[in-house]
Amino acid sequence: MRAEFHADLEEVSLLLVAMADEVRSAMKRATNALLSADKGIAEGVITGDVVVNRFHREVEDKVYSLVARQAPVATDLRLVMSALHVASDFERMGDLAKHVAKTAIRRHPNPAVPSELVPVIRDMAAVADRIAGKISKVVASPTAASAAEMEREDDAMDDLHKGLFVVLLGAAWRNGVESAVDGALLGRFYERFADHAVNAGRRMYYLVTGENLGDEATPTP
Amino acid sequence: MRAEFHADLEEVSLLLVAMADEVRSAMKRATNALLSADKGIAEGVITGDVVVNRFHREVEDKVYSLVARQAPVATDLRLVMSALHVASDFERMGDLAKHVAKTAIRRHPNPAVPSELVPVIRDMAAVADRIAGKISKVVASPTAASAAEMEREDDAMDDLHKGLFVVLLGAAWRNGVESAVDGALLGRFYERFADHAVNAGRRMYYLVTGENLGDEATPTP
Repeated sequence: MRAEFHADLEEVSLLLVAMADEVRSAMKRATNALLSADKGIAEGVITGDVVVNRFHREVEDKVYSLVARQAPVATDLRLVMSALHVASDFERMGDLAKHVAKTAIRRHPNPAVPSELVPVIRDMAAVADRIAGKISKVVASPTAASAAEMEREDDAMDDLHKGLFVVLLGAAWRNGVESAVDGALLGRFYERFADHAVNAGRRMYYLVTGENLGDEATPTP
Repeated sequence: MRAEFHADLEEVSLLLVAMADEVRSAMKRATNALLSADKGIAEGVITGDVVVNRFHREVEDKVYSLVARQAPVATDLRLVMSALHVASDFERMGDLAKHVAKTAIRRHPNPAVPSELVPVIRDMAAVADRIAGKISKVVASPTAASAAEMEREDDAMDDLHKGLFVVLLGAAWRNGVESAVDGALLGRFYERFADHAVNAGRRMYYLVTGENLGDEATPTP
């Protein structure tokens, strides 16, 4: 029974890793579409979101069947349940990649990001990508150190997010209201993407250590 | 066993109703704080979010203990698990009320919402309040009709959200970039608040009918 339980859990964990890799790739492609005003790539991200949603349902189905067959209790039950939360976070990360892709399409063939904002958006996308890479590793083999590392990346994201607003609201801004609104929403998409990864990391940390790393990660504004 | 299961489930359901009422009240107070530039009310919403988080943990603890003691399977298990998803949606709704309150504080003592935006923000807040009132009823006794009603409210919210952008991005906008960015983010907070309520409603609908009402509700932009 015990061995079977662990084999089942391993299957759930593999699904979660695949899901994390999928949303990481989606955000990477969405950023490409955004910064190169490439409509085809953006459309691919939007239609590709069904893959993420399918993973989400698979995780739920596996967890339900595992709980029904194995009737885990105490720590084992919490471990299994965490998979549901983590899968929900990943599903939202996929949605956020889709929002970035939609922004690219809305302004196409014009670039959605004016040149003054390209560096900070590029940096936010790079942090988002690193965080998504880390959460995949944390899910595969959670350690306290790797979960804590994600917190530091999230601090970097928060600083970039503040920097974005400094540019947007600065006296030198010449790109008008529409561009500023797009920039603010894009900033939020990347920041939320990171927050969901960090929340997933905190769940895993809690499982490993039994301690809370902090409150839910929530956006700066 | 069966009677005990239903008594436990009833307890979870009562907690969820209390949680829905709490986030509804939080958003109502946040809107008040926003439109009357009242810092005290805004601070109350921010500190009051711990109540929502406490409810969230209580729901999780009750669900875990219910699953561990009763080992439900099939439909019963799905029913219990839905409570976790619904509680997560409510928790996010509480966060969004907090974001509205924070926006009020950031601009205090100035009003965060320029007069041109007051009508649409007031309307979005009214729809948010009606949707939150409905989800509380849907959780208490889910019917297909009441869940479907929430979808219609959500359509009204999407129309208001589009209307907000028409004002923000119109040629007559005289309130500058900062105000426009605030307005766009506020619009997103109300819209996401409604989306989470609608997602919770869809979960309940699925439980009652076994059918999907549609994809996850996601924001318009």
